[in-house]
Amino acid sequence: MEADSELDGYHKVEVVGVYMSSATEGAAPTPIVLLENKEEKVLPIYIGASEAFSIQTALEGMPYPRPLTHDLFISLVEGLNSKIEKVIIDDLDDGVFFARLIVSRNGDEIEFDARPSDSLALAVRTKAPIFVSKDVMKEASVKRDEYNASA
Amino acid sequence: MEADSELDGYHKVEVVGVYMSSATEGAAPTPIVLLENKEEKVLPIYIGASEAFSIQTALEGMPYPRPLTHDLFISLVEGLNSKIEKVIIDDLDDGVFFARLIVSRNGDEIEFDARPSDSLALAVRTKAPIFVSKDVMKEASVKRDEYNASA
Repeated sequence: MEADSELDGYHKVEVVGVYMSSATEGAAPTPIVLLENKEEKVLPIYIGASEAFSIQTALEGMPYPRPLTHDLFISLVEGLNSKIEKVIIDDLDDGVFFARLIVSRNGDEIEFDARPSDSLALAVRTKAPIFVSKDVMKEASVKRDEYNASA
Repeated sequence: MEADSELDGYHKVEVVGVYMSSATEGAAPTPIVLLENKEEKVLPIYIGASEAFSIQTALEGMPYPRPLTHDLFISLVEGLNSKIEKVIIDDLDDGVFFARLIVSRNGDEIEFDARPSDSLALAVRTKAPIFVSKDVMKEASVKRDEYNASA
Protein backbone atom coordinates (compact mmCIF):
# COMPACT_ATOMS: atom_id res chain seq x y z
CA MET A 1 0.00 0.00 0.00
CA GLU A 2 1.36 3.41 -0.92
CA ALA A 3 2.11 5.80 1.87
CA ASP A 4 -0.36 8.35 0.53
CA SER A 5 -3.06 5.86 -0.31
CA GLU A 6 -4.85 6.30 3.00
CA LEU A 7 -5.79 9.34 5.03
CA ASP A 8 -7.32 8.99 8.49
CA GLY A 9 -11.06 9.55 8.44
CA TYR A 10 -11.20 9.46 4.65
CA HIS A 11 -11.91 6.98 1.90
CA LYS A 12 -9.64 7.01 -1.10
CA VAL A 13 -11.77 7.03 -4.24
CA GLU A 14 -11.29 6.74 -7.97
CA VAL A 15 -13.22 8.48 -10.72
CA VAL A 16 -15.37 5.82 -12.39
CA GLY A 17 -16.64 8.09 -15.12
CA VAL A 18 -19.03 10.79 -16.18
CA TYR A 19 -22.65 9.93 -16.87
CA MET A 20 -25.97 11.61 -17.47
CA SER A 21 -28.59 11.33 -14.76
CA SER A 22 -31.85 9.78 -15.80
CA ALA A 23 -34.40 12.41 -16.77
CA THR A 24 -37.04 12.74 -14.10
CA GLU A 25 -40.36 14.52 -14.38
CA GLY A 26 -39.77 18.21 -14.85
CA ALA A 27 -35.98 17.87 -14.77
CA ALA A 28 -33.59 17.53 -17.68
CA PRO A 29 -30.78 14.95 -17.48
CA THR A 30 -27.74 16.43 -15.73
CA PRO A 31 -24.09 15.32 -15.83
CA ILE A 32 -22.89 13.27 -12.89
CA VAL A 33 -19.36 12.29 -11.97
CA LEU A 34 -19.20 8.97 -10.18
CA LEU A 35 -16.56 8.20 -7.54
CA GLU A 36 -15.96 4.77 -6.05
CA ASN A 37 -14.02 3.46 -3.07
CA LYS A 38 -12.51 0.02 -2.73
CA GLU A 39 -15.61 -1.27 -0.91
CA GLU A 40 -17.58 -0.69 -4.12
CA LYS A 41 -19.53 2.19 -2.63
CA VAL A 42 -20.18 4.86 -5.25
CA LEU A 43 -20.68 8.57 -4.71
CA PRO A 44 -22.56 10.44 -7.46
CA ILE A 45 -21.97 14.20 -7.69
CA TYR A 46 -23.93 16.47 -10.01
CA ILE A 47 -21.63 18.72 -12.01
CA GLY A 48 -21.83 21.31 -14.78
CA ALA A 49 -21.70 20.39 -18.45
CA SER A 50 -18.32 21.95 -19.15
CA GLU A 51 -16.69 20.32 -16.13
CA ALA A 52 -18.21 17.00 -17.23
CA PHE A 53 -16.72 17.48 -20.69
CA SER A 54 -13.36 18.39 -19.19
CA ILE A 55 -13.25 15.32 -16.92
CA GLN A 56 -14.37 13.01 -19.73
CA THR A 57 -11.80 14.42 -22.14
CA ALA A 58 -9.03 13.77 -19.62
CA LEU A 59 -10.27 10.27 -18.77
CA GLU A 60 -10.26 9.35 -22.44
CA GLY A 61 -6.80 10.80 -22.91
CA MET A 62 -8.05 12.57 -25.99
CA PRO A 63 -6.76 16.12 -25.69
CA TYR A 64 -8.94 18.89 -27.06
CA PRO A 65 -7.29 20.82 -29.92
CA ARG A 66 -6.99 23.91 -27.71
CA PRO A 67 -6.22 23.90 -23.98
CA LEU A 68 -9.37 23.57 -21.89
CA THR A 69 -9.53 25.67 -18.73
CA HIS A 70 -8.25 22.78 -16.61
CA ASP A 71 -5.41 22.10 -19.05
CA LEU A 72 -4.36 25.74 -18.72
CA PHE A 73 -4.67 25.40 -14.95
CA ILE A 74 -2.29 22.42 -14.96
CA SER A 75 0.16 24.27 -17.21
CA LEU A 76 0.14 27.10 -14.72
CA VAL A 77 0.67 24.81 -11.72
CA GLU A 78 3.62 23.17 -13.47
CA GLY A 79 4.98 26.46 -14.82
CA LEU A 80 5.08 27.77 -11.27
CA ASN A 81 6.99 24.66 -10.13
CA SER A 82 4.06 23.45 -8.09
CA LYS A 83 2.13 20.22 -7.87
CA ILE A 84 -1.43 19.14 -7.22
CA GLU A 85 -0.99 16.90 -4.17
CA LYS A 86 -4.49 15.76 -3.48
CA VAL A 87 -8.17 16.51 -3.56
CA ILE A 88 -10.33 16.22 -0.47
CA ILE A 89 -14.12 16.21 -0.55
CA ASP A 90 -15.22 16.65 3.01
CA ASP A 91 -18.45 18.53 3.30
CA LEU A 92 -21.98 18.26 2.01
CA ASP A 93 -24.48 20.97 2.72
CA ASP A 94 -28.00 20.97 1.30
CA GLY A 95 -26.94 18.85 -1.65
CA VAL A 96 -23.79 20.88 -2.38
CA PHE A 97 -20.45 19.10 -2.03
CA PHE A 98 -17.40 21.06 -0.90
CA ALA A 99 -13.84 20.19 -1.82
CA ARG A 100 -10.34 21.33 -1.03
CA LEU A 101 -7.54 21.35 -3.55
CA ILE A 102 -4.12 20.85 -1.99
CA VAL A 103 -1.20 22.27 -3.96
CA SER A 104 2.43 22.01 -2.92
CA ARG A 105 5.43 24.14 -3.70
CA ASN A 106 8.91 23.79 -2.25
CA GLY A 107 7.55 21.43 0.39
CA ASP A 108 4.82 23.83 1.52
CA GLU A 109 1.20 22.87 1.05
CA ILE A 110 -1.44 25.44 0.16
CA GLU A 111 -5.13 24.66 0.37
CA PHE A 112 -7.85 26.10 -1.85
CA ASP A 113 -11.61 26.04 -1.40
CA ALA A 114 -12.97 24.47 -4.60
CA ARG A 115 -15.89 22.73 -6.19
CA PRO A 116 -15.50 18.95 -6.54
CA SER A 117 -15.96 19.23 -10.31
CA ASP A 118 -12.90 21.46 -10.77
CA SER A 119 -10.88 19.48 -8.26
CA LEU A 120 -11.67 16.22 -10.03
CA ALA A 121 -10.95 17.66 -13.48
CA LEU A 122 -7.50 18.58 -12.13
CA ALA A 123 -6.96 15.27 -10.30
CA VAL A 124 -7.69 13.12 -13.34
CA ARG A 125 -5.12 15.10 -15.32
CA THR A 126 -2.37 14.66 -12.74
CA LYS A 127 -3.26 11.32 -11.10
CA ALA A 128 -3.48 13.16 -7.78
CA PRO A 129 -5.23 11.02 -5.15
CA ILE A 130 -8.83 11.84 -4.26
CA PHE A 131 -10.22 11.44 -0.74
CA VAL A 132 -13.79 11.69 0.51
CA SER A 133 -14.50 12.02 4.22
CA LYS A 134 -16.13 9.00 5.84
CA ASP A 135 -19.03 11.23 6.95
CA VAL A 136 -19.75 12.36 3.40
CA MET A 137 -19.44 8.80 2.08
CA LYS A 138 -21.82 7.60 4.75
CA GLU A 139 -24.34 10.29 3.94
CA ALA A 140 -24.27 10.24 0.16
CA SER A 141 -22.79 7.04 -1.23
CA VAL A 142 -24.65 3.92 -2.32
CA LYS A 143 -23.60 0.39 -3.14
CA ARG A 144 -22.41 0.13 -6.70
CA ASP A 145 -24.84 -2.59 -7.71
CA GLU A 146 -27.76 -0.57 -6.35
CA TYR A 147 -26.83 2.52 -8.30
CA ASN A 148 -28.37 3.21 -11.68
CA ALA A 149 -27.18 5.86 -14.05
CA SER A 150 -27.51 5.86 -17.78
CA ALA A 151 -24.11 6.06 -19.40
CA MET B 1 -1.25 57.35 -20.33
CA GLU B 2 -0.08 54.43 -18.22
CA ALA B 3 3.25 52.84 -19.01
CA ASP B 4 1.65 49.47 -19.75
CA SER B 5 -1.23 50.88 -21.71
CA GLU B 6 0.46 50.40 -25.06
CA LEU B 7 2.42 47.56 -26.59
CA ASP B 8 4.10 47.93 -29.98
CA GLY B 9 2.12 46.26 -32.73
CA TYR B 10 -0.91 45.76 -30.48
CA HIS B 11 -4.16 47.48 -29.69
CA LYS B 12 -5.18 47.70 -26.06
CA VAL B 13 -8.78 46.57 -25.77
CA GLU B 14 -11.48 46.42 -23.12
CA VAL B 15 -14.14 43.80 -22.64
CA VAL B 16 -17.43 45.41 -23.65
CA GLY B 17 -19.58 42.49 -22.58
CA VAL B 18 -20.92 39.08 -23.37
CA TYR B 19 -23.75 38.70 -25.85
CA MET B 20 -25.59 36.05 -27.78
CA SER B 21 -25.04 35.94 -31.51
CA SER B 22 -28.16 36.28 -33.61
CA ALA B 23 -29.54 32.91 -34.59
CA THR B 24 -28.88 32.21 -38.24
CA GLU B 25 -30.41 29.53 -40.40
CA GLY B 26 -29.35 26.13 -39.11
CA ALA B 27 -27.26 27.56 -36.27
CA ALA B 28 -28.25 28.17 -32.67
CA PRO B 29 -27.30 31.45 -31.00
CA THR B 30 -23.80 31.24 -29.53
CA PRO B 31 -22.15 33.36 -26.83
CA ILE B 32 -19.82 36.08 -28.02
CA VAL B 33 -17.41 38.18 -26.02
CA LEU B 34 -16.95 41.63 -27.50
CA LEU B 35 -13.66 43.53 -27.22
CA GLU B 36 -13.21 47.17 -28.19
CA ASN B 37 -10.23 49.42 -28.75
CA LYS B 38 -10.15 53.17 -28.31
CA GLU B 39 -10.86 53.73 -32.00
CA GLU B 40 -14.27 52.12 -31.44
CA LYS B 41 -13.37 49.02 -33.43
CA VAL B 42 -14.95 45.94 -31.93
CA LEU B 43 -13.70 42.37 -32.09
CA PRO B 44 -16.31 39.63 -31.56
CA ILE B 45 -15.03 36.24 -30.41
CA TYR B 46 -17.23 33.16 -30.16
CA ILE B 47 -16.81 31.44 -26.81
CA GLY B 48 -18.28 28.53 -24.84
CA ALA B 49 -21.31 28.89 -22.61
CA SER B 50 -19.46 28.34 -19.34
CA GLU B 51 -16.70 30.80 -20.20
CA ALA B 52 -19.41 33.32 -21.17
CA PHE B 53 -21.08 32.79 -17.80
CA SER B 54 -17.76 33.17 -16.02
CA ILE B 55 -16.88 36.43 -17.80
CA GLN B 56 -20.35 37.87 -17.26
CA THR B 57 -20.33 36.95 -13.57
CA ALA B 58 -17.03 38.76 -13.11
CA LEU B 59 -18.12 41.81 -15.11
CA GLU B 60 -21.22 42.16 -12.96
CA GLY B 61 -19.17 41.75 -9.78
CA MET B 62 -21.73 39.24 -8.57
CA PRO B 63 -19.70 36.32 -7.26
CA TYR B 64 -21.17 32.87 -7.65
CA PRO B 65 -21.85 31.13 -4.32
CA ARG B 66 -19.06 28.62 -5.00
CA PRO B 67 -15.76 29.41 -6.75
CA LEU B 68 -16.03 29.09 -10.50
CA THR B 69 -13.07 27.52 -12.28
CA HIS B 70 -11.57 30.94 -13.04
CA ASP B 71 -12.05 32.07 -9.44
CA LEU B 72 -10.11 29.01 -8.30
CA PHE B 73 -7.49 29.79 -10.94
CA ILE B 74 -7.04 33.31 -9.54
CA SER B 75 -6.85 31.97 -5.97
CA LEU B 76 -4.08 29.67 -7.13
CA VAL B 77 -2.17 32.44 -8.91
CA GLU B 78 -2.35 34.60 -5.80
CA GLY B 79 -1.63 31.71 -3.44
CA LEU B 80 1.55 31.01 -5.39
CA ASN B 81 2.58 34.70 -5.09
CA SER B 82 2.13 35.26 -8.77
CA LYS B 83 0.24 37.77 -10.87
CA ILE B 84 -1.59 37.80 -14.17
CA GLU B 85 0.32 40.49 -16.04
CA LYS B 86 -1.46 40.64 -19.34
CA VAL B 87 -3.37 38.81 -22.01
CA ILE B 88 -2.31 38.91 -25.64
CA ILE B 89 -4.51 37.76 -28.51
CA ASP B 90 -2.27 37.54 -31.51
CA ASP B 91 -3.30 34.85 -33.89
CA LEU B 92 -6.36 33.86 -35.85
CA ASP B 93 -6.41 30.66 -37.84
CA ASP B 94 -9.48 29.39 -39.65
CA GLY B 95 -11.80 31.27 -37.30
CA VAL B 96 -9.97 30.19 -34.13
CA PHE B 97 -8.34 32.93 -32.05
CA PHE B 98 -5.17 32.16 -30.10
CA ALA B 99 -4.14 33.90 -26.91
CA ARG B 100 -1.20 33.99 -24.55
CA LEU B 101 -1.57 34.43 -20.83
CA ILE B 102 1.41 36.17 -19.24
CA VAL B 103 1.97 35.41 -15.56
CA SER B 104 4.76 36.89 -13.46
CA ARG B 105 6.49 35.68 -10.34
CA ASN B 106 9.47 37.25 -8.64
CA GLY B 107 10.00 39.46 -11.65
CA ASP B 108 10.06 36.55 -14.11
CA GLU B 109 7.37 36.30 -16.75
CA ILE B 110 5.97 32.95 -17.85
CA GLU B 111 3.81 32.62 -20.93
CA PHE B 112 1.00 30.12 -21.43
CA ASP B 113 -0.80 29.11 -24.61
CA ALA B 114 -4.48 29.72 -23.90
CA ARG B 115 -7.88 30.24 -25.40
CA PRO B 116 -9.07 33.87 -25.45
CA SER B 117 -12.15 32.91 -23.41
CA ASP B 118 -10.11 31.65 -20.44
CA SER B 119 -7.64 34.50 -20.74
CA LEU B 120 -10.41 37.08 -20.74
CA ALA B 121 -12.23 35.43 -17.82
CA LEU B 122 -8.97 35.79 -15.88
CA ALA B 123 -8.24 39.33 -17.09
CA VAL B 124 -11.64 40.70 -16.07
CA ARG B 125 -11.12 39.32 -12.56
CA THR B 126 -7.71 40.92 -12.12
CA LYS B 127 -7.95 44.04 -14.31
CA ALA B 128 -4.98 42.74 -16.28
CA PRO B 129 -4.58 44.63 -19.56
CA ILE B 130 -5.68 42.92 -22.77
CA PHE B 131 -3.90 43.40 -26.09
CA VAL B 132 -4.86 42.29 -29.59
CA SER B 133 -2.32 42.30 -32.39
CA LYS B 134 -2.89 44.89 -35.09
CA ASP B 135 -3.01 42.08 -37.68
CA VAL B 136 -5.81 40.28 -35.86
CA MET B 137 -7.72 43.53 -35.32
CA LYS B 138 -7.36 44.36 -39.00
CA GLU B 139 -8.59 40.94 -40.04
CA ALA B 140 -11.49 40.45 -37.65
CA SER B 141 -12.68 43.71 -36.11
CA VAL B 142 -15.49 45.93 -37.32
CA LYS B 143 -16.61 49.46 -36.53
CA ARG B 144 -18.73 49.51 -33.43
CA ASP B 145 -21.69 51.21 -35.07
CA GLU B 146 -21.70 48.64 -37.86
CA TYR B 147 -21.76 45.72 -35.46
CA ASN B 148 -25.02 44.11 -34.41
CA ALA B 149 -25.40 41.62 -31.63
CA SER B 150 -28.44 41.01 -29.57
CA ALA B 151 -27.74 41.59 -25.90
